[in-house]
Amino acid sequence: MQRKPAPPGDRLDTIDTPALVVDADAFERNLDRMAEATRAIRLRPHAKSHKCPAIAKAQLARGAVGVCCQKTDEAAAFVAAGIRDVLVTNEIVAPAKVARLVDLARSARIGVLVDAVPAVATISQAATRAGVVVDVYIEVDVGAHRCGVAPGEPALELARAIALAPGLRLRGLQAYQGAAQHLREPGARRDAIASAAAAARRTREMIEGAGIACELVTGAGTGTWQHERDSGVYGELQPGSYVFMDADYGRNVADPSDLRFEQSLFVLASVMSTPAADRAIVDAGLKAFSFDSGRPLVHQRAGAEYVKASDEHGVLRIAAGAPPAQLGERVWLIPGHCDPTVNLYDWIVAVRGGIVEALWPVEARGALG
Amino acid sequence: MQRKPAPPGDRLDTIDTPALVVDADAFERNLDRMAEATRAIRLRPHAKSHKCPAIAKAQLARGAVGVCCQKTDEAAAFVAAGIRDVLVTNEIVAPAKVARLVDLARSARIGVLVDAVPAVATISQAATRAGVVVDVYIEVDVGAHRCGVAPGEPALELARAIALAPGLRLRGLQAYQGAAQHLREPGARRDAIASAAAAARRTREMIEGAGIACELVTGAGTGTWQHERDSGVYGELQPGSYVFMDADYGRNVADPSDLRFEQSLFVLASVMSTPAADRAIVDAGLKAFSFDSGRPLVHQRAGAEYVKASDEHGVLRIAAGAPPAQLGERVWLIPGHCDPTVNLYDWIVAVRGGIVEALWPVEARGALG
Repeated sequence: MQRKPAPPGDRLDTIDTPALVVDADAFERNLDRMAEATRAIRLRPHAKSHKCPAIAKAQLARGAVGVCCQKTDEAAAFVAAGIRDVLVTNEIVAPAKVARLVDLARSARIGVLVDAVPAVATISQAATRAGVVVDVYIEVDVGAHRCGVAPGEPALELARAIALAPGLRLRGLQAYQGAAQHLREPGARRDAIASAAAAARRTREMIEGAGIACELVTGAGTGTWQHERDSGVYGELQPGSYVFMDADYGRNVADPSDLRFEQSLFVLASVMSTPAADRAIVDAGLKAFSFDSGRPLVHQRAGAEYVKASDEHGVLRIAAGAPPAQLGERVWLIPGHCDPTVNLYDWIVAVRGGIVEALWPVEARGALG
Repeated sequence: MQRKPAPPGDRLDTIDTPALVVDADAFERNLDRMAEATRAIRLRPHAKSHKCPAIAKAQLARGAVGVCCQKTDEAAAFVAAGIRDVLVTNEIVAPAKVARLVDLARSARIGVLVDAVPAVATISQAATRAGVVVDVYIEVDVGAHRCGVAPGEPALELARAIALAPGLRLRGLQAYQGAAQHLREPGARRDAIASAAAAARRTREMIEGAGIACELVTGAGTGTWQHERDSGVYGELQPGSYVFMDADYGRNVADPSDLRFEQSLFVLASVMSTPAADRAIVDAGLKAFSFDSGRPLVHQRAGAEYVKASDEHGVLRIAAGAPPAQLGERVWLIPGHCDPTVNLYDWIVAVRGGIVEALWPVEARGALG
């Protein structure tokens, strides 16, 4: 486990590195902005981004209706921390996992996705055995081509099975267009969500036309949530990364009308070797960042670029004429992809005004099951 | 934290997924092979690969002289578990880290690298204050262009500073050619190590020519260790990944004379959605593997390829004519890069003969500081 990088009250320069640091002011502005912009719709932020009940509670305090999780064990961590409304936006089919999930419904409102008829029976039997009712959402493939049934008839077939199954409450549709979140051009994101919303609308109408209640369409992410909000189809939004942001979201071209979120998440690293004028080595590599969406960006340090990583080293290229790197120099780095980077740390160091304000435990880190 | 995926004694099909699984037979054969092949030289395996004292003890039982670590907190985890000889193959320059490191020298033999004169004084003062002696190795850049001083004169200058500093014992040179480990062609790896060994030899001769003892040249990794062993220069080897292997090491072209290690490390995943005949979704994505060295490989499952990952999903492409994917089907996956993948798990599930034999805690997981 990661040792605590600093005690609250310390100055920034005492934080042991590498450390995952959140600028608390920027973070709170992000939460406030999203809460303000979603007053007329349900906001259920995705907790897979932060895995941190302290952050979930800050979102709930601003009006969020609950959280999303992606794993049974993540949901268990949030329920254990007192969160009373958790939607697992994923297919849970292994009987042992289903048993753990329905057990959580004794102390919280629990939702889960289905995209196959056999899963309906598995969850129904477990819920009946546990004497609970579980919210079920049909996952519809609205363009991401990951999980989900095709819009229309296949979803209706599932709805019929769910409606007949004891212990299940068909709550609505999961219509998350994950592939649209990082389309770089704003028009491409808007078009992808228009298409997703049309498929979701048609599917819900078909199910309700068959006399089966299908109240809520839920979905959306940080790259597209404004379009789902304004679609007239979605009733609930699931963005997660907006609390932190990352280098990959930073590469999305914004539309002038887009609400902007600030980079609040950083990895604080230190220079541990200055072997050449054009090269400095920091103490944060492949175990300090997820590299799936590219290298970290150097934040506000002139003439330095993070060009290469090995397990525990990061190589900075120092441009000619830039200030020379100093042994022990602190470097703030913006992760390429926030979610899997956060999952590498046990502590988020919240800082404000140059002081460590709090250490937030990442309680669902490593909750894989 | 990750929940324990299965209790010892259970059958494989009860392991909760995703789980990090080691084939204990293949793993032990790897340890035996390396121990046998290094009888005439010191073996100090790198524990950054496994972060697991149970594995370190299995290596020591077969004759290893100690372990390498990469971080102060990793070293602390191994010393706490009873390992009595730890070399941190990295520059430690932050005074708080140095203080923690020298403190470990009260209960274990501790070594550390230096590649800059200011670090000599920092470590010397801390060691003197703690009343301990620390082994110091000069890191020489033998071709990797990461940390390290240039061979020859710059190393001699450091050696002079170390020889004069109380609390430090100059043990030798760290001459790790990290960039050679994944050169695909065997001749290229051999040539790179010949060049590294020549630079290390010359540097040691220069230091000893100045009347300063510089006994040991240490280094090597899983891709090249035979060349360092046979060089006549290196006295100690530091391979780590050989215990597990991974897809990236699997891409190295072997020379007929190379000793081969078996793939012993897997991520066991489950199919959670079968939305199309040519597509199945498993429950292991960016938080279950490190993707820095490419995607995982599907092990012994005909016609399936892991083609895409998101945070908690992996997309398998199922070839036409291959057995259809089944909901709940178990899939064994070979990680692209073992070290940072192991760092995502709290437990290694050791299996033998279809049974869970033991759960090894990954005690130094997340030991970043």
